Amino acid sequence: MSTRASTASSAWDLGERGLIERIRTRFPTPSESLTIGIGDDAAIMAPARGALEVATTDALVEGVHFDLAYSSFADVGFKALAVNVSDVAAMGGTPRFALLSLILPERISAADVDALLDGFHEMASEARVALAGGNLARSPSTASGPGPLIVDVTVFGSVKPRRVLTRSGGHPGDALYLSGTIGGASAGLEWLRAQPRSGKTQPNDADLEECVARHRRPPPRLRLGAIAGRTRAATACMDLSDGLADAVTQIARQSGTGATIEASVLPIHAGAARWFSVHGGDPVMAALRGGDDYELLFAVPQRHRGRFRALIQQARGVPLTRIGELTRDPAIVMTRNGRPEPLPSGFVHF
Amino acid sequence: MSTRASTASSAWDLGERGLIERIRTRFPTPSESLTIGIGDDAAIMAPARGALEVATTDALVEGVHFDLAYSSFADVGFKALAVNVSDVAAMGGTPRFALLSLILPERISAADVDALLDGFHEMASEARVALAGGNLARSPSTASGPGPLIVDVTVFGSVKPRRVLTRSGGHPGDALYLSGTIGGASAGLEWLRAQPRSGKTQPNDADLEECVARHRRPPPRLRLGAIAGRTRAATACMDLSDGLADAVTQIARQSGTGATIEASVLPIHAGAARWFSVHGGDPVMAALRGGDDYELLFAVPQRHRGRFRALIQQARGVPLTRIGELTRDPAIVMTRNGRPEPLPSGFVHF
Repeated sequence: MSTRASTASSAWDLGERGLIERIRTRFPTPSESLTIGIGDDAAIMAPARGALEVATTDALVEGVHFDLAYSSFADVGFKALAVNVSDVAAMGGTPRFALLSLILPERISAADVDALLDGFHEMASEARVALAGGNLARSPSTASGPGPLIVDVTVFGSVKPRRVLTRSGGHPGDALYLSGTIGGASAGLEWLRAQPRSGKTQPNDADLEECVARHRRPPPRLRLGAIAGRTRAATACMDLSDGLADAVTQIARQSGTGATIEASVLPIHAGAARWFSVHGGDPVMAALRGGDDYELLFAVPQRHRGRFRALIQQARGVPLTRIGELTRDPAIVMTRNGRPEPLPSGFVHF
Repeated sequence: MSTRASTASSAWDLGERGLIERIRTRFPTPSESLTIGIGDDAAIMAPARGALEVATTDALVEGVHFDLAYSSFADVGFKALAVNVSDVAAMGGTPRFALLSLILPERISAADVDALLDGFHEMASEARVALAGGNLARSPSTASGPGPLIVDVTVFGSVKPRRVLTRSGGHPGDALYLSGTIGGASAGLEWLRAQPRSGKTQPNDADLEECVARHRRPPPRLRLGAIAGRTRAATACMDLSDGLADAVTQIARQSGTGATIEASVLPIHAGAARWFSVHGGDPVMAALRGGDDYELLFAVPQRHRGRFRALIQQARGVPLTRIGELTRDPAIVMTRNGRPEPLPSGFVHF
């Protein structure tokens, strides 16, 4: 892991314009639809034909959402974009452009800024997102040290009308399907926190290593969200930024339904299940509460099961698990060993 | 001025969802074109027909861009949006939607958040911008005190093709026109800084009072930017966030020209001229260097002077002053008393 303390000179020595030039060089205007990119008062983009616009913003704050002892600058750049494109996917949309607002500590090195941009670039390439512009500001130092690094990203995308997946579109009887596995990111973070401060940054165990990787670089389910929107297989969708318990609660509340999920079928990440068990926790509760997984939760009506099966076939190895359903009864419960339990409250970063 | 130190309870006591609800109540989804606003994974908006999209982001950071001893929370909310819509105006566009990303200190009171939202709302009403969504995060405290308040805003708007005003559209011979006056915001900030820390926050002098007001709540030239785009009166445009010297330099460099401006005609704010003179400065240099004015600088070709005169007539009392022209000679100079002087370098916040 790189740390700011070890850097000799500051990226700010380049000046704001120098830094902007550095960013522009790394993100050449790549598409016809980005008419004006970095370097003017604002970006100009051609809208997608016949589509609605999707827009979302999410910030990663040092000391709140990440710790540079656990994540590299490249991880932070990657994740800052990943969590935003995940929100676009959760609407059934396709991300197109990003704005990058960086609040940089005074002593951050040019190499660390480059690493952050490299990570951002990696996710941008994967998601086919063009960097359209952004902003740079200084994070003020205090008597006790440098100010926090903040990476605030806005992503715009497009979605065709009638293909929008909201949180509120569910109905009683809709099945709840979950992509991937849960608990991995929070188990990975717990493992990192359990190491001595200057100790190991990578577990020897392959499952736990995957958990740590999921904390650092969550894979947004772009393809699944876009296909679910396009095929109209789902009526509601949300990403799991604040955990499964929170997502089930949000979809049910906003759809005006209740929900019931079955503990025994929850796809808990193998590394997470072992980690939580060994450390005396309840893996089910921990995985339900744990945030930062960025999987998608779908509500799928009975009549669309065929469409959804087609989506499962196109999921390229990402499992889709039926974990429960929306109910007419407004209660939101989990059934474990045949007995109902209340869901834990959602993950909070603060 | 309100200060955080005086607050008893924290806005965070409401929880993230409670705070979002508070914001949503204040910004009801107001327009047909905002299909989905605050409260889902992302916002969904209908694009403006036959138009390109404009997007910009700009953050105000406590201790860098504002000081809560000099500006109220309402001022900060107002200005955070004003500086963004100014960028849209500088492209010849019309702002439509905003995303508000708030990084809030742990002890900020609900009343202070409300005040910030009130100021934001005031500018939003003036600019006819709908709040489409946003994000909340905690600004981490350090041993030496609370973390900084950061208000990071993204604004999207629309502009018709062929009506886009870039920085690079100028040609040798184009006249340079400047809206409003310069130096006011920086003189206002200097006045505030010259007061004892718990002293007066409002000067007795009406001109200086206007300078202080311009620092706190700069008026973005929305109407002028939109009309200049629509009438195609200007070939290039930029806002004066970093001062006139910087704007002249940017337009000339990006247009591949030089520039010459005439010191004697510069519309220096009366209060600023007096303030800088009394304090032993050179009012011309101070006004050229001073940032935060958010006036617009236009390049207007000879053949469009008629169109530009029509714009002047629609400017509703905002003066438009011809201050110089773009030149074939690549030098960027100011003429004072018939002699050339180099321009000062631009305003930097850090």
